[in-house]
Amino acid sequence: MKTYLDCIPCFFRQVLEGSRISRATPKQQKQIIDQFARKIPKIPLDASPPEIARIGYKLLRSVSLNGDPYHAIKQKSNRCALRLLGRLKEKVNTSKDRLFTAVELAIAGNIIDFGAKNNLNIEEELKRILTEENKFIDTQSIFHYRDFSRTLKKAGDILYLADNAGEVVFDRILIEEIKKKYPDKNIYYAVKGKPVINDALYEDAKTCGIDKTALVISNGTDAPGTVLALCSKEFKQIYKSADMIISKGQGNFESLSSEKRDIFFLFMVKCPVVAKETESKMGNIVLLYNRNHKGRIVKNKKTS
Amino acid sequence: MKTYLDCIPCFFRQVLEGSRISRATPKQQKQIIDQFARKIPKIPLDASPPEIARIGYKLLRSVSLNGDPYHAIKQKSNRCALRLLGRLKEKVNTSKDRLFTAVELAIAGNIIDFGAKNNLNIEEELKRILTEENKFIDTQSIFHYRDFSRTLKKAGDILYLADNAGEVVFDRILIEEIKKKYPDKNIYYAVKGKPVINDALYEDAKTCGIDKTALVISNGTDAPGTVLALCSKEFKQIYKSADMIISKGQGNFESLSSEKRDIFFLFMVKCPVVAKETESKMGNIVLLYNRNHKGRIVKNKKTS
Repeated sequence: MKTYLDCIPCFFRQVLEGSRISRATPKQQKQIIDQFARKIPKIPLDASPPEIARIGYKLLRSVSLNGDPYHAIKQKSNRCALRLLGRLKEKVNTSKDRLFTAVELAIAGNIIDFGAKNNLNIEEELKRILTEENKFIDTQSIFHYRDFSRTLKKAGDILYLADNAGEVVFDRILIEEIKKKYPDKNIYYAVKGKPVINDALYEDAKTCGIDKTALVISNGTDAPGTVLALCSKEFKQIYKSADMIISKGQGNFESLSSEKRDIFFLFMVKCPVVAKETESKMGNIVLLYNRNHKGRIVKNKKTS
Repeated sequence: MKTYLDCIPCFFRQVLEGSRISRATPKQQKQIIDQFARKIPKIPLDASPPEIARIGYKLLRSVSLNGDPYHAIKQKSNRCALRLLGRLKEKVNTSKDRLFTAVELAIAGNIIDFGAKNNLNIEEELKRILTEENKFIDTQSIFHYRDFSRTLKKAGDILYLADNAGEVVFDRILIEEIKKKYPDKNIYYAVKGKPVINDALYEDAKTCGIDKTALVISNGTDAPGTVLALCSKEFKQIYKSADMIISKGQGNFESLSSEKRDIFFLFMVKCPVVAKETESKMGNIVLLYNRNHKGRIVKNKKTS
């Protein structure tokens, strides 16, 4: 997906909010904004939003003391989500279609996001997910579940692209469910190579216990998405050979939506531009099969 | 009021929305964004928001065919508001305190704004004003009405600073009420000197019939507020000698809030930065006497 002009005001908002989370002084905040503004005229809009946002987040790291301004936030997200693990498992255990519920929960966990919305009360939001009884998808949601379960059945190697810290616990629920149903599947769980916003790193995957059911790998980059041109050779090999890709979050959708692979994008719609691009509404949860996308969004729901 | 860093993403949003209203091609839109981005590092934040926004709106005029991209929108606002004139007058005629109601309506008319919010359905919004029965102010509103009516009684020359086209009809209601109560008052109605967003120009004041009760003057500038350093000598003389200033809209508040004159700011709070500055909430309508402002906001309500 290319960058829309509407993304530009949003990049500035993200850079400003990020500079505050990085505890930059007001003078430093202005300097970061100025540096980012100087780069804008040099950026072609056929780059995807994560490619451009990456430039802003790189500037933030330069003022952050530990190079990872969102570290404490990520740890908190992991703790909050881990506290919910038992209840999430129970939700799957008591559901009629375990895999379907696990998919729903994995997408609902995408509510944790500091790029699109940073004033989030993680604990409150996550609790809300658990109390909302099957209200995640409605008749307007894009939910290519039939394609998802069919593709999953056939796939040998699955590449699961992580999004945010904390959300990893919700991914774990889905991955454990897949492994329960298909123990022979080989699942790679890809995190970011360097800190960017609150995106999950190796330590988050480990803290959330995903390393017990999947092989955690790094994509080798610091882009808030999967910008293939910047990813490591090792990652690209797995990306190329995987039979199915499960991609979490808007950032991964924005950077991979034009790819010709079998990708299932699982995310919550958090900005008007992605809402427009996917013909969805803000706040919708989406399970989008890229082969159904681009002019022929098929809204197939849960299969019987 | 100085410019906050939070204003910067908002300036970009305004410039982008304005460039679309100006019917700039996508390429031109990007060029305008780029030109504005190049200026950001050169702008000191002790300038008021209208001083900086002016730079963006100036760029828009360069791509507009008639130099006034909001011309049709302004004409529509005038027409919509004029259709309500009879009902607005009736509202004043049937109220217990005519002046109080006229002040309320003048502020409610400030809902017309294409800087803060451009996807406005003018007709719908204006109708809403008329159906909301005295719900404009609540116990949390800043409403220095006692000071307003006392100052008005004593004032000889009054300078009334206009904000948006269409809103002028609501100003007319208040000005006619002042003239009815105090026929000897001398009222100057100041519009912008050049087109900027949907701010009222001389032709809007005339279309809305304000020239029959007040002397319409120009402030001589194209800033979306009253940036005194840029105003004409003639305007500044009147500004200096007036006994009372009635200032409409956020832009005038942002540019004059630090002034040591008797100014009454009448506006609707439309952005989080102004909400913070005035200790108000978004959507509040405010009648703020600057002598009560800055550390001692006195929430005096309607006098008996």
